[in-house]
Amino acid sequence: MSNYLITGTSKGLGLYLVKELLKRPARSVGLIFATTRSAPTPALQKAIDESSGHVVNIIVDPTDVESLKTALPLVEKHLGDAGLDVLINNVGTGPFANGIKNMDNLADVFNVNVMSVQNVTTAFLPLLEKGELKKVVNMSTTVSSFAYQDVFVRLPAPAYKITKAALNMLTLQWGMEYRDQGFTIFGVSPGWCKTDLGGEGANLEPEQGAEAAMKVIDAAGKEEVGRMINIRLEGFEDGPGDRYQGGVVPW
Amino acid sequence: MSNYLITGTSKGLGLYLVKELLKRPARSVGLIFATTRSAPTPALQKAIDESSGHVVNIIVDPTDVESLKTALPLVEKHLGDAGLDVLINNVGTGPFANGIKNMDNLADVFNVNVMSVQNVTTAFLPLLEKGELKKVVNMSTTVSSFAYQDVFVRLPAPAYKITKAALNMLTLQWGMEYRDQGFTIFGVSPGWCKTDLGGEGANLEPEQGAEAAMKVIDAAGKEEVGRMINIRLEGFEDGPGDRYQGGVVPW
Repeated sequence: MSNYLITGTSKGLGLYLVKELLKRPARSVGLIFATTRSAPTPALQKAIDESSGHVVNIIVDPTDVESLKTALPLVEKHLGDAGLDVLINNVGTGPFANGIKNMDNLADVFNVNVMSVQNVTTAFLPLLEKGELKKVVNMSTTVSSFAYQDVFVRLPAPAYKITKAALNMLTLQWGMEYRDQGFTIFGVSPGWCKTDLGGEGANLEPEQGAEAAMKVIDAAGKEEVGRMINIRLEGFEDGPGDRYQGGVVPW
Repeated sequence: MSNYLITGTSKGLGLYLVKELLKRPARSVGLIFATTRSAPTPALQKAIDESSGHVVNIIVDPTDVESLKTALPLVEKHLGDAGLDVLINNVGTGPFANGIKNMDNLADVFNVNVMSVQNVTTAFLPLLEKGELKKVVNMSTTVSSFAYQDVFVRLPAPAYKITKAALNMLTLQWGMEYRDQGFTIFGVSPGWCKTDLGGEGANLEPEQGAEAAMKVIDAAGKEEVGRMINIRLEGFEDGPGDRYQGGVVPW
């Protein structure tokens, strides 16, 4: 029975990752700590109400180290002697800019997409060390692959590309340092989903992205440490860039 | 006759880039704007004094957009009707951390290594558009190459690696967007130099790194847009990682 902590669960992919876990047999999933910055949205509250106590909302700002220090004992109290098995650093943002010279949000986007991952991973490390699986999953994107920049040249989200590239290097540093201590720390590209971030033109429903991402998370082992792993989905061979064929995304 | 602006010239590589340009015939180098955050160090002052008016110190904080707005008309006044030909975003920092969970300087390092490049490039873009060469050079490092992380695993500078990876993606975004407007925007790895950043154990004198980097800058054209280019130096085949064999550094 595994315990999860997922950031950014008010809506979008984070919400659907929670819902995906709730589809599993109750014996396989213990507690799911679903973090939000403010009171749960109706959609998350519904998932909590229907979860028979599996989903616990934690209100915390992942960009704020002090806020995380306050959240830690709350999570600890629920877990008792158990640890956290899987941390999913999902919170993220990808605003557009009209030309890179007009990108005036880079520091803010870095704070959300990178600093939050550093803060949350550090804050919950003691509980992950007590866990069995010791998995840390950082949600990334093929859009941040240097090798794919020609494909994504028309996507006007430079701060997203830049900060997720930084996140990928953060993931690799964590992955390499903690590999020998039994940790599997890696990135996942959950595909282009119809969320506030992905927009209506995306080619996946968020349920599809969440289901495929959870499959990657389940399967990941030593080989995946530090890498960004793509989802695998049939029927999207003509999709943009990655085509959802699984495997390691080239840097 | 080309006009240059170089950030971070108080010491280290930036100072030696200024000195390298001063070795050239006076007819090939126009003005060299050498930026510093405070009054020039004795070493920079000496270079200024001996430059026959070629080197102009500009006191500006490259992480501060307002400070840059104040600096722009100063540079403009010196240039008259001329433009800037080459901008070298050199300012940078690479502090150590004792384990990635103790990396408490990531936001600050990002501010210096990435935000300053975004701010400075944006601020001086109008003057670069008036220049002939339209080169923007972002000082990077092979240490930020994903492909080389196994080589640099023992270098305890995670914030340096992470922020320079972000810088590389910033460089690629700028490079791709401005390629069709005659700009050559690219990165250079100046090697491991004996500066405050590189430490005493480095294998290059800063003069060597600066000279080799200026050769890369001189030679760079359309093929180099968006890439990180390595210096070429004979006699360092056994050096760490890159071995100074020139060419494009793999991401």
